[in-house]
Amino acid sequence: MSEVRRDIVTDTWVIIDTKNDTIPNGVPEQHIDKGKCPLCEGNEQQTPNEIWAVRDGSPVNQPGWKVRVIPNINPILQVEGELEKSGTGVYDMVSGIGANEVIVEAPHHTPHFFDLSDEQVMLVLQTYRMRIEDLHNDKRLRYILIFKNHGKAAGASGIDHPHSDLIALPATPIRIKQKLNGSREYFSYKERCLFCDIIQQEIEMADRLVFLSDHFAVITPYASRFPFELLVIPRKHQFSYTMINDEQINDLAHVVKRVLRVIHSTLNDPPYNIVLNDSPNLLPKQNYWTTITDDFHWHIEIIPRLYRRTGFELGTGFYINRFAPEKASALLRQRL
Amino acid sequence: MSEVRRDIVTDTWVIIDTKNDTIPNGVPEQHIDKGKCPLCEGNEQQTPNEIWAVRDGSPVNQPGWKVRVIPNINPILQVEGELEKSGTGVYDMVSGIGANEVIVEAPHHTPHFFDLSDEQVMLVLQTYRMRIEDLHNDKRLRYILIFKNHGKAAGASGIDHPHSDLIALPATPIRIKQKLNGSREYFSYKERCLFCDIIQQEIEMADRLVFLSDHFAVITPYASRFPFELLVIPRKHQFSYTMINDEQINDLAHVVKRVLRVIHSTLNDPPYNIVLNDSPNLLPKQNYWTTITDDFHWHIEIIPRLYRRTGFELGTGFYINRFAPEKASALLRQRL
Repeated sequence: MSEVRRDIVTDTWVIIDTKNDTIPNGVPEQHIDKGKCPLCEGNEQQTPNEIWAVRDGSPVNQPGWKVRVIPNINPILQVEGELEKSGTGVYDMVSGIGANEVIVEAPHHTPHFFDLSDEQVMLVLQTYRMRIEDLHNDKRLRYILIFKNHGKAAGASGIDHPHSDLIALPATPIRIKQKLNGSREYFSYKERCLFCDIIQQEIEMADRLVFLSDHFAVITPYASRFPFELLVIPRKHQFSYTMINDEQINDLAHVVKRVLRVIHSTLNDPPYNIVLNDSPNLLPKQNYWTTITDDFHWHIEIIPRLYRRTGFELGTGFYINRFAPEKASALLRQRL
Repeated sequence: MSEVRRDIVTDTWVIIDTKNDTIPNGVPEQHIDKGKCPLCEGNEQQTPNEIWAVRDGSPVNQPGWKVRVIPNINPILQVEGELEKSGTGVYDMVSGIGANEVIVEAPHHTPHFFDLSDEQVMLVLQTYRMRIEDLHNDKRLRYILIFKNHGKAAGASGIDHPHSDLIALPATPIRIKQKLNGSREYFSYKERCLFCDIIQQEIEMADRLVFLSDHFAVITPYASRFPFELLVIPRKHQFSYTMINDEQINDLAHVVKRVLRVIHSTLNDPPYNIVLNDSPNLLPKQNYWTTITDDFHWHIEIIPRLYRRTGFELGTGFYINRFAPEKASALLRQRL
């Protein structure tokens, strides 16, 4: 089992793979031919047994599905076992308990998420909701992260069959803790949701507003770490992605496709990451639910990877962004 | 002037270049021929006027130097001007005040820092101390960062003349704040320096200890974020790099060269970053100096860039490391 270790100095958690003996050498060069792709319909026998699938009555682990969720074949965390916390001198670790799933977003091979139909993307977004809801029942799992890597420089594996990764973690990650702390501090001072105030201000100022749909705002954040970084955020307060309804999912499918298409054409098919920033898995004993669900607001980050971090970013967590978010927003608005 | 903006949600600062109009497209491909290198001895007229240089009586901005410090020709922060803090609705920013210097580490062209003589590396390390001391006099500057980028994937500019970058910032970076908080919390509980305790434990356990010199320990940290990440740390408690003496500098020059050489040969000339993690620029009014200087301990991070962050690391600040630090340490120890 891997170990989840905590850096006592910075409160950063690291999953350490203690089994692997291969010296890493960049992202493995891997290109899977269309016919041999284990994620394609017809090749179900090449993957572990499915956890869930959108099927019209077809038998499990057989063709006839629209979206399919499988365990990662090379998981970094495992579901079975006790969640054990232990110390080694000054250090802390927890056992490598968690989940590591792959959400296969379509039965057929296509490199671009935005080429999927609206209906297909809706099924994917519904699957996200369903998987998070399901994993929230396991109270050992503190945080469920869903993300997409597109392009090698964004860490993609080389399988260009459309898929997302899901990792359920036994500890709350530092960036999420920072977001929770930031928004809770603001709430305790203003008694308003920080994200709701940001949305209102961005709609009024308009210079960083890329797109406004019925249910979502797309903005280039004020302190964008990366050029063309985007934030997709529900306009109405919503604590957790599990609360999204089907009307909103319909709208979100349209918004995400449209935004990815304009990023693709404006920046010449850049590598990018998409990260769903959801609230953590609440424990029943935590404070009052009413208060807790007022002070976080789920959102999606879309991050083109045009720039590699130098020692400056790595050493400080301070970022340099050489293209102002107001300019990025103006350019994208023009082309939408 | 650029703007230094704060992300209110995560307390992350970003320097936004508001002048630049070029859409970024990765690290610019730049390869400077030896004869045309502006950092080489003899080409001093191609750089801005020097801030400082190690010279044996030769005139400024002329040949005859050993180490030379110049302003970055394309600075992201500027020294002149008032440090102004302002708000825009919920957001905060400070004006782009700071310093952005280049420390040219030798008069001649060579791609590898470890090929410089011990004496030359000592002069470089003394220059670091001198520049930090000097910039600490400017109380607008909250933090001085010195770092090196080697190889394109580590953000190097394409000029393979040996040099380090110095950036003096008007706000304390989040990663430094985390380190200060972590070590202060520990100190207030134990009344001992966290880093001193880590060094003692690592020497006792020995499985992550790569090398021990008279004055420094080199370890692969318990929660290494990256494979073969290294920490070089003074064995005796020392709050700030400005307190390093010449005997320690002599030892450090030897240690850094030796470690970089073994990283180079073991990992086949990997891209890497070196980051000097110093204490912040203390304000005279801050608490009691005696207490303050007990609870931080400067150190150097050496980070081979073998792995690109995916959406997972970007979204969470949680890391996956597929090569255990104990294995990395054993391998490097063997080859030292």
